[in-house]
Amino acid sequence: MIKKIHATQADPTAREKLLRAAVDAFDRKGYAAATVREIVEAAGVTKPVLYYYFENKEGLFQELMDEVVLKFSQVLEKNQEAGGSARGRIEGLCDNSFRLFKENVPVVRVLNSLYYGPPQGAPPVDTDKNHRLFQERLKELLVEGRDAGEFRFEKTEDAMWAIIGVLNVAMEVEFCHPEMALGPKDLKRVLGIVFAGMAAQPRGESPRGTHRRKGVQP
Amino acid sequence: MIKKIHATQADPTAREKLLRAAVDAFDRKGYAAATVREIVEAAGVTKPVLYYYFENKEGLFQELMDEVVLKFSQVLEKNQEAGGSARGRIEGLCDNSFRLFKENVPVVRVLNSLYYGPPQGAPPVDTDKNHRLFQERLKELLVEGRDAGEFRFEKTEDAMWAIIGVLNVAMEVEFCHPEMALGPKDLKRVLGIVFAGMAAQPRGESPRGTHRRKGVQP
Repeated sequence: MIKKIHATQADPTAREKLLRAAVDAFDRKGYAAATVREIVEAAGVTKPVLYYYFENKEGLFQELMDEVVLKFSQVLEKNQEAGGSARGRIEGLCDNSFRLFKENVPVVRVLNSLYYGPPQGAPPVDTDKNHRLFQERLKELLVEGRDAGEFRFEKTEDAMWAIIGVLNVAMEVEFCHPEMALGPKDLKRVLGIVFAGMAAQPRGESPRGTHRRKGVQP
Repeated sequence: MIKKIHATQADPTAREKLLRAAVDAFDRKGYAAATVREIVEAAGVTKPVLYYYFENKEGLFQELMDEVVLKFSQVLEKNQEAGGSARGRIEGLCDNSFRLFKENVPVVRVLNSLYYGPPQGAPPVDTDKNHRLFQERLKELLVEGRDAGEFRFEKTEDAMWAIIGVLNVAMEVEFCHPEMALGPKDLKRVLGIVFAGMAAQPRGESPRGTHRRKGVQP
């Protein structure tokens, strides 16, 4: 056993291979139906290698989720440090979240399956917490933009849902209609419709002009 | 047996009770785990009553799906007959679809569970077909509105995704954050941001004015 663990340590790619094989198995068969045996076989390693790195199937799943949650918090942190217009920062937040999604489509599909599907005995994932963190950051940026005269809207939540709606639909198309999948540029263009709809002044007027209109949208 | 079937025919609510009990069981436990036994017990009827109306669990499921699909095609048909501005007809289409959703939240949750979750052995439901019908109708209305000088956008698909995004997010909030659930009026207000963003002319200009601007959004 000790010998096997040492062999594992000499193969840093075994860990990565196991993570990829696990996502693939969870994605194809569901978390409950995926077995340790098929995961190690697909990864081309032995069971002790899996036990060494992840303890068990739950540990493998947990590691997959932790990695995505970590990357997502890095996206949020990076956004906190960004400067520029509120629109630019919201575009950056959506773009980075969408790129993270694109790099992790199978993991998100597994998450969706657990979120919407029947209980499968997987360790709990606080998906709602990530939704809330994103919503909070977005609302902050919307309020900043409104206060700076960049946006106008009746309710901050309305603007928040319009933006989240566009980001979500771009993700859903990837699952439901991959033949129509949107890229980052497409997402930016669709978001552009929402930004035009909450621009503080009609097109053509100077954002800081003395004739800037106040009040809410019609 | 024949006696039991006659007793059933004298109780038209038994069918409805079975449908409600089935949705509830599929929703709570998943299609695969829900049993005929618990469905008939929850409905307060005997198994032969279920067999009489629906043949089996598959038949019950099929009937539930057929009912929603039928109501959805009625929403689309009604929209084909509607008159008025393209915006008004798109608002009507979204409003009626959203109300249909609101009346059938548990059925849609079951559909989502099958769509995103692992295979559960349920009869196939062509969810994508309904998506496509909705998308096609929406695109027709968007093109009509653009040709009539009501809207402007770079790509019809962009406007389509912005609107579907808002409608979808209103549905998702119902599942993911019921404490923030949107009503039909909220949906209309959020859609208003998208419509403002694809208005053919900036706010304040006459829609048919000689100074109407042409071209695409910035």
